[in-house]
Amino acid sequence: MFKINDNYLKLPGSYLFSTVAKKAAAFTAANPDKKVIKLSIGDVTQPLAPAIIDALHKSVDEMAHAETFHGYAPDLGYEFLRSTIAENDYKSRGCDISADEIFVSDGAKSDSGNIGDIFSVDNKIAVCDPVYPVYVDTNAMSGRTGDYLVDQQKWSNVIYMPCTEATNFAPEIPKETPDIIYLCFPNNPTGSTITKSQLQEWVDYANKVGAVIIYDAAYEAYISEDDVPHSIYECEGARTCAIELRSFSKNAGFTGLRLGFTVIPRDLKSGETTLHSLWARRHGTKFNGAPYIVQRAGEAVYSEAGKNQTKEQIAYYMKNAKVIKEGLKEAGYSVSGGVNAPYIWLKTPDNMSSWDFFDYLLEKANVLGTPGSGFGPSGEGYFRLTAFGSYENTVEAIERIKRM
Amino acid sequence: MFKINDNYLKLPGSYLFSTVAKKAAAFTAANPDKKVIKLSIGDVTQPLAPAIIDALHKSVDEMAHAETFHGYAPDLGYEFLRSTIAENDYKSRGCDISADEIFVSDGAKSDSGNIGDIFSVDNKIAVCDPVYPVYVDTNAMSGRTGDYLVDQQKWSNVIYMPCTEATNFAPEIPKETPDIIYLCFPNNPTGSTITKSQLQEWVDYANKVGAVIIYDAAYEAYISEDDVPHSIYECEGARTCAIELRSFSKNAGFTGLRLGFTVIPRDLKSGETTLHSLWARRHGTKFNGAPYIVQRAGEAVYSEAGKNQTKEQIAYYMKNAKVIKEGLKEAGYSVSGGVNAPYIWLKTPDNMSSWDFFDYLLEKANVLGTPGSGFGPSGEGYFRLTAFGSYENTVEAIERIKRM
Repeated sequence: MFKINDNYLKLPGSYLFSTVAKKAAAFTAANPDKKVIKLSIGDVTQPLAPAIIDALHKSVDEMAHAETFHGYAPDLGYEFLRSTIAENDYKSRGCDISADEIFVSDGAKSDSGNIGDIFSVDNKIAVCDPVYPVYVDTNAMSGRTGDYLVDQQKWSNVIYMPCTEATNFAPEIPKETPDIIYLCFPNNPTGSTITKSQLQEWVDYANKVGAVIIYDAAYEAYISEDDVPHSIYECEGARTCAIELRSFSKNAGFTGLRLGFTVIPRDLKSGETTLHSLWARRHGTKFNGAPYIVQRAGEAVYSEAGKNQTKEQIAYYMKNAKVIKEGLKEAGYSVSGGVNAPYIWLKTPDNMSSWDFFDYLLEKANVLGTPGSGFGPSGEGYFRLTAFGSYENTVEAIERIKRM
Repeated sequence: MFKINDNYLKLPGSYLFSTVAKKAAAFTAANPDKKVIKLSIGDVTQPLAPAIIDALHKSVDEMAHAETFHGYAPDLGYEFLRSTIAENDYKSRGCDISADEIFVSDGAKSDSGNIGDIFSVDNKIAVCDPVYPVYVDTNAMSGRTGDYLVDQQKWSNVIYMPCTEATNFAPEIPKETPDIIYLCFPNNPTGSTITKSQLQEWVDYANKVGAVIIYDAAYEAYISEDDVPHSIYECEGARTCAIELRSFSKNAGFTGLRLGFTVIPRDLKSGETTLHSLWARRHGTKFNGAPYIVQRAGEAVYSEAGKNQTKEQIAYYMKNAKVIKEGLKEAGYSVSGGVNAPYIWLKTPDNMSSWDFFDYLLEKANVLGTPGSGFGPSGEGYFRLTAFGSYENTVEAIERIKRM
């Protein structure tokens, strides 16, 4: 008699964004005349840049002829893309990362979930609280998080590192020593960042206690301030303790194209075993590469035209972020984020719960946001708005919120 | 101190096809004047069909405009593709499978590895021997296979079902009862099939003992004989015991585009829990959908033009299969497969080991094949050739083998 993975049954309710989508659908069904503006999920709205479209058409044409057809991609990604990434994202910032330490994938969501495969179930994880729910949920699925304590909205075997007003939205070194530390900066959902010297403290700590840091830098393209690191490999010693996750979703609008990569330096070891070799084995056995045409599109992001065009898109979204942040401030809200990230994090008024504010905002302003509590217990009483809408919708949403 | 997943360290050597590729590269480096013909890995060589190319260009253009841009895909796949699959692959064959029981993914390799996530480590698997190595390797990675016994080339906790000349290359119901049964028909690597009534026996058995069948039908498009089932859901009772994996790689040349799907009927349960709900949760949490443009390409495979064009490609490959099979017979080899599958399975001459024959064939005929022993211990003494080369190369390879 086959047996299921019981860990799945411990997962509370459904995935945050599914619940938001369901509530939104119910509201729209009940109020067909109301125009709901979504400042909720982190999907982009700007079309793919012309340089990317050109690369796609060109590579699609290659697929039409036997001489230029591309079948199975190399397990770990095409060399043309890996070396372009190494040059532009790492060498140009003084980071010592080589092309063969870069593993191309179908996105950071897959990688951030699948990376757990190469670690023992017997590891204690630490996460920023609040944070992108996939880290905790995927660890729960593999049995690493203990039991879910409904009253505390916490897992019994996870180290939560509160990131609230009290900590300036940055995590502090936890009292209990973790084995695996998930850091996400610029942070989803708070939009906060830490400085290079703060990140250096984490690298030093991880090396000291023998922990591995899984550093999610999916939003690095939004960084506008000088002392904020774009990669953990800007810090000394990161090659022996850190894995970095990157995405093309938010810097170049690939949410519907699917492309990301993971960096595992060869110096990162457990005893004599490199994590690089384990991840290479996982990739080779359970994955068959990202599509050739999408890898060519990824390469185009780094062309001169691609860089300029995607920078314009980011500027567009960050203009929205400014509209949201300043508008909310004018309306008397306490807000953070929105400077190095497309996320604005606000404190709910009058100590409303996150979900109460979700309902209130949807009802009164017909604006959809994401409840902070969905990202972790310390997110309770907070709320996330994103800058990925159109400028016109963003302006209108903020006007409506001001009138609430 | 972080701990790795020790199960990875139990895996013997590297992945079969990597080893073949390395040996081929070494031979080419040492013999730059020799033209090596690859009848080894299962990659296609024909370019994408015009109907698919058109769909790609059209959907790429959609991605260039905000009004028609597509961001995150629905977790489980676009409705347009799921309903097209349900109609063409299932309803048209009288199989009771609905669109919402179909989960679109980036390929059958990912799915056949990831499907293990939803099962307890405490399940005993049964596999055809020989078979596609991913089933056993991914179960080994998750700790389900016991220890690797080097002398027997077997895992201690896996039920091997020999498929050799003695069994007419079909598995027999094993003496020990398995929890999870992997079946792959048409089979990779032997190219063999089983009839509908034989498959019905497996379905009846699985329902009787409470086992789940993971049915890999990646090669169903190559079936030419009438009594060979294209889907396990042609059998009565399969909805309560079977998961089916499908791929666009071999029927439409998507090895470099990446698209597949998994079918989980809602009647397949463990107690009250549907496996459908577990897989939906896994998909929603660890995967972000296949690219929109690739799903549109998948839809085009089912258009009238797409059907005709891909049928022509399959006929092209099956003509190669005939060349290989008949040529080998003429040369005195004992061969099977090649009728309902693009794989030809031959017995090595003079009781040579599979790897010895690999070296012999590469050295004497400069033809690359795949050692049968790489697919399981009962593959020892056998060898796989594939029909995915060009017609000209296939003919030349067989001429060379005849001259050996």
